[in-house]
Amino acid sequence: MPPKPQGRTRGPVLIVGSGLLGASIGLALSGLGVEVWLQDASPSAAALARDLGAGRLIAPGEQAGLVVVAVPPDVVAPVVAAVLRAHPEAVATDVASVKLLPLQALTELGADLSRYVGGHPLAGRERSGAISARSDLFVGRPWVLTPAEDVDAVAVEVVRDLILDLGAFPVTMDAAAHDQAVAVISHVPQVLSSLVAARLLESTDAALSLSGQGLRDTTRIAASDPGLWVQILGANAGPVADVLTALRHDLDATIAALRRLTGGADAVGARAGLATVLDAGVRGHARIPGKHGSAPVELAVVTVQVPDRPGEIGRILHAMGEAGVNLEDLRIEHVPGRRMGLAEISVMPMAREALLVLLERGGWNVAG
Amino acid sequence: MPPKPQGRTRGPVLIVGSGLLGASIGLALSGLGVEVWLQDASPSAAALARDLGAGRLIAPGEQAGLVVVAVPPDVVAPVVAAVLRAHPEAVATDVASVKLLPLQALTELGADLSRYVGGHPLAGRERSGAISARSDLFVGRPWVLTPAEDVDAVAVEVVRDLILDLGAFPVTMDAAAHDQAVAVISHVPQVLSSLVAARLLESTDAALSLSGQGLRDTTRIAASDPGLWVQILGANAGPVADVLTALRHDLDATIAALRRLTGGADAVGARAGLATVLDAGVRGHARIPGKHGSAPVELAVVTVQVPDRPGEIGRILHAMGEAGVNLEDLRIEHVPGRRMGLAEISVMPMAREALLVLLERGGWNVAG
Repeated sequence: MPPKPQGRTRGPVLIVGSGLLGASIGLALSGLGVEVWLQDASPSAAALARDLGAGRLIAPGEQAGLVVVAVPPDVVAPVVAAVLRAHPEAVATDVASVKLLPLQALTELGADLSRYVGGHPLAGRERSGAISARSDLFVGRPWVLTPAEDVDAVAVEVVRDLILDLGAFPVTMDAAAHDQAVAVISHVPQVLSSLVAARLLESTDAALSLSGQGLRDTTRIAASDPGLWVQILGANAGPVADVLTALRHDLDATIAALRRLTGGADAVGARAGLATVLDAGVRGHARIPGKHGSAPVELAVVTVQVPDRPGEIGRILHAMGEAGVNLEDLRIEHVPGRRMGLAEISVMPMAREALLVLLERGGWNVAG
Repeated sequence: MPPKPQGRTRGPVLIVGSGLLGASIGLALSGLGVEVWLQDASPSAAALARDLGAGRLIAPGEQAGLVVVAVPPDVVAPVVAAVLRAHPEAVATDVASVKLLPLQALTELGADLSRYVGGHPLAGRERSGAISARSDLFVGRPWVLTPAEDVDAVAVEVVRDLILDLGAFPVTMDAAAHDQAVAVISHVPQVLSSLVAARLLESTDAALSLSGQGLRDTTRIAASDPGLWVQILGANAGPVADVLTALRHDLDATIAALRRLTGGADAVGARAGLATVLDAGVRGHARIPGKHGSAPVELAVVTVQVPDRPGEIGRILHAMGEAGVNLEDLRIEHVPGRRMGLAEISVMPMAREALLVLLERGGWNVAG
């Protein structure tokens, strides 16, 4: 007899696609006692995820209540459409990092959009595949939901519960707004990291021996899989091209200022041009939330002891959602040698009291 | 009575400029028992470095044997020229991150270039000023030497000994080759990090809440001091503009490919264009030496226990230099709770035996 599920998600959950994200979701849900079925175009990929504990292979004709589509961006729309047809009672979501194009394609395919809620977990690793899967991959990470206009409210609630059970926090956005956001914070940094790294191909070994942490940091993501990124960039081509065009304007101004400085006399204002670009970088960097930048608002931080049990973070997030306490940021720290972690929960200052009350009622120990 | 100096550097050493680099050199040399004098256009900056233990203030008329100029790039040439005049027996070096322009300026100023050896330690911190100084700032880092044609061989030897005493390893390059190298591995990544971060100024708070490690890594150095970077970029304008122009060519190709993908039908080859750029990034990134890339040659790595005494790394590097064993890479690991560190010394496989012999003769314990 299966154990009683510890989260809110009711199985069986079908996961289509057994890569890093699909297998990680399977591991986490299985750990919560949810029944998970696996399906993959590659039988060996599905079998590997099964052997790692992500779930069992789906049998012909079985009907799921919730389907998570975790396939490459290129094939998300046809797979979601097929899933909605094959599982006529199920809610479907996906984890693709681009949201507008798949939604448009699903509309053109005549899919039942009342049961589909687009999703994008902002989580990943440099390594891919089920072998790199981790049940805590999503803990403390944002997970964007992009419900379309005609979606069923119950479907949104089901996907929201899934996200909270996985320890992530849901951020609801319009599909177009999502794609513009990730163009700036993810896709353009990826392209520029590759462009900087490509310059190294013409360098001498002596020059490369001088490499330091700055170069390593700016080019780390350039090592990512080109095949996957061609799909992502291709599916978000418009917003990425717009941001790159704006960036090229600054790049042109920088090159022009540098050329004037090498030209000798007529360099009035050239240094001011460089300073403007560099100063904009300082101010842009300062907008990144978290410890690497200054938050626009001073948040209240409450630290809670979290027993190292599956779904514990999800339970806190659920309790916060029911009490109407918005999560602003979440950091998890594992205490070495103890089956216990610390969760740093950031909320707006006015919500601090409500948070403390609900934590006490739920039996969680506030550490500071 | 001062302690017997533990390195090869003989004092008194005058350090002109009491910022992060000058104060760190002063701390390290003082720790080795070398007499250090400090001089700074700002009396309070010099006094702070003195109070932190970097040396004592120079008295009027005192003559140094070695002068290290650690002032901002803009004023390196006039300060070095003045130092060579005021200390007619001294060897002078500097730590500026650009080397050709100061050398040309010194030539125009008629400075005695037989006693000047340009230098550039590839070390730094995000924080600046003497207050951030550390005596181990240079340990295991490359330090470029750019001796000009008419330099005295003894002067080069003196600066080489200084670098080894500080635990850094000397890399000799032509000034122009140095500037081209740092344009690719340092100055262009700095500009692009700023350009990517500047795009965040137009983002919404919701978009920024999705920020992940990729954005943090690519924009970390965008937080650096714009004033300092205007000087550095201005002093290396030609090489930086050349690399940025090559990068703009790739950027234009990327934008063109993305625009074709948004244009609908006529997108044949557009994805191949994206893949070419991304693949060049993967291959460029792989050329970075060390654990983040694959080394072009398999090196032999010898791990040595290093007592946590000033100058111990420098003594090993001196011994290697005398035995003709070239250092390829050096990593230092401190062992928590013990006054002992581990040095991972990488050499060409054919030099491994000679390294083991000299370490044994010098009384160092090889750990693996």
